[in-house]
This record gives sequence, C-alpha cells and structure tokens, in this order.
Amino acid sequence: MPGPTLCYEDLAVGRRFGTGEIAVTREEIVAFASRFDPQPFHLDAEAAGGSVFGGLVASGWLTGALTMKIMIEGELRLAGGHVGLGIDSIRWPRPVRPGDRLTAVTEVLEMRPSASRPGHGVVKFRTETLNQDRETVQVMVATQLVLRRPA
Amino acid sequence: MPGPTLCYEDLAVGRRFGTGEIAVTREEIVAFASRFDPQPFHLDAEAAGGSVFGGLVASGWLTGALTMKIMIEGELRLAGGHVGLGIDSIRWPRPVRPGDRLTAVTEVLEMRPSASRPGHGVVKFRTETLNQDRETVQVMVATQLVLRRPA
Repeated sequence: MPGPTLCYEDLAVGRRFGTGEIAVTREEIVAFASRFDPQPFHLDAEAAGGSVFGGLVASGWLTGALTMKIMIEGELRLAGGHVGLGIDSIRWPRPVRPGDRLTAVTEVLEMRPSASRPGHGVVKFRTETLNQDRETVQVMVATQLVLRRPA
Repeated sequence: MPGPTLCYEDLAVGRRFGTGEIAVTREEIVAFASRFDPQPFHLDAEAAGGSVFGGLVASGWLTGALTMKIMIEGELRLAGGHVGLGIDSIRWPRPVRPGDRLTAVTEVLEMRPSASRPGHGVVKFRTETLNQDRETVQVMVATQLVLRRPA
C-alpha cells in the first residue's frame, strides 16, 4: 500500500489516495469514550438502545482519529508528515458501530504555494471514510501544509 | 461546575458555558499518537525538535478529544447529550505541548427548531480551547442536535 514519500509537486487537483482497512471494536469504542466522550450512547449498549442512535456508536472523534491513522499509513505519504492547518468541515452521515471496518479515500481539492512559509504549499484535501458496505460514515475537508521539493 | 441539564429552550444566542481544566501529559500525547496519529512530531521529542513545531506537540485530534471531554463534564450539560451533526470548522492557532492545562468556553452562535426531527433543535456552537496562559489553541464551530423541552 505505501508508495514513496510525496511532496507538493507530486500532488494534483483530483488525484486520489487510498488507505488500508481498520476494524472498529466495541472495546475501543468504549475505551475511547470513557476517556474523551463519556456519553451513554458511546459507553453502554443498553443505554444506547434508547438513544437517538438505537445502539452503541463510536464517538465522532474516534471515527476521525481512526481515519487519521489509516491516512497516515496509506498512500498519501507526505514528505514532511501530515501537518494540519485546520479542518474546514466534518460530517457524519451514518454512525459507526462495533464490528465496522473502515477505509478512506483522500482527494486533492485545491493547492497553492504558501505565501507565509517558503518551501511549503497549502493543500485542501477531501477525505471520505467508508464502512464495509461502502456506505459513507464521515466526510472531512481539511487543509494541510505540504513540503515543496527543494529546487 | 456542572449545573442542571439543559434543553433547547434554556439556550440563547450569545450565552457562554465554561469547563473545568484538563492537563495534557507527554504520556497521553505519545500514547494517543501511537494509536491514531503516528508521526514523529507527536511521538518523539528529539525528532520533533527538527520539525516545523520545534518540539513535541499533541495531535490536533487529541486536542479536539480532550476539549470534548471537558465540554461533556462542564457547564453545557445537554439533556439528550452532545449529538454532533457535524463540525463546521476547526483551527489550531497554537500547538498544544506536554504540561499544558486546557480549558474551554462554548458560546451559542445560532439556533433553530429542527425541521426534520420534531422535539429537537439545531444549535451551532463556537468552542474556544485555551491553555494555562490564556492563549487560544483551538477554535471549533460545530452543530449539534439538542432536545426541546416537552410541552
């Protein structure tokens, strides 16, 4: 899966990068929620059954963090690493449940040289996270600082 | 710190809600990164010294997750819990480093009854996360589903 390390010059608007798969376990949903997002619908299947979700679901922060993990280890290997300038939007159209297996695909939306940081570019990416049924569980648009190749 | 549980009717544009404080440890920065964001500037102080950050920094996902934790346990106790419809933006104007102590304040930006979900409102919140020097380390705008008080 991983290819060579990429610089700004290797990217192009519309280019897409895949990832490997990661499994979402009940244990990790509950452990993550216990520390970061202690709400009944993330902690306890019985309480979750009566919630708006109708069952135990992952914190959106866990879905985001798991997506980060597979991106870091996927095809989009950036020379200076993934340095986030900010997130432009995240949507969670469907919940993530125990047993789901997630993959993601990242597309280059926009790119320009950085005005303030010589040697860097500013790239806007759209990352879609899918479950094992190819249903979209997260759509994130984020902007990153990407190293330019030394002249 | 925690007050009574709040419904949509208890909110108003401009109303602000504080949180308690949470400490960011080197151990948690490294453990979180090892699982979710395995990059040198989140994992290893020496490698981080040569990065754009000049030292070990927390993953933005950890800053977001720790902010979620203190929000959940802070003054903004929502009756149906914090049900995120999506994030409208996140910015990280300053890095979070080991030893930082974070607090957050959440302000109601917009609110309207939900058209699709009777009994709920849609509320846009702005949450600013601050370090111990009152410097802003994260600004997030997010939209949540909030229970209305039964008539």
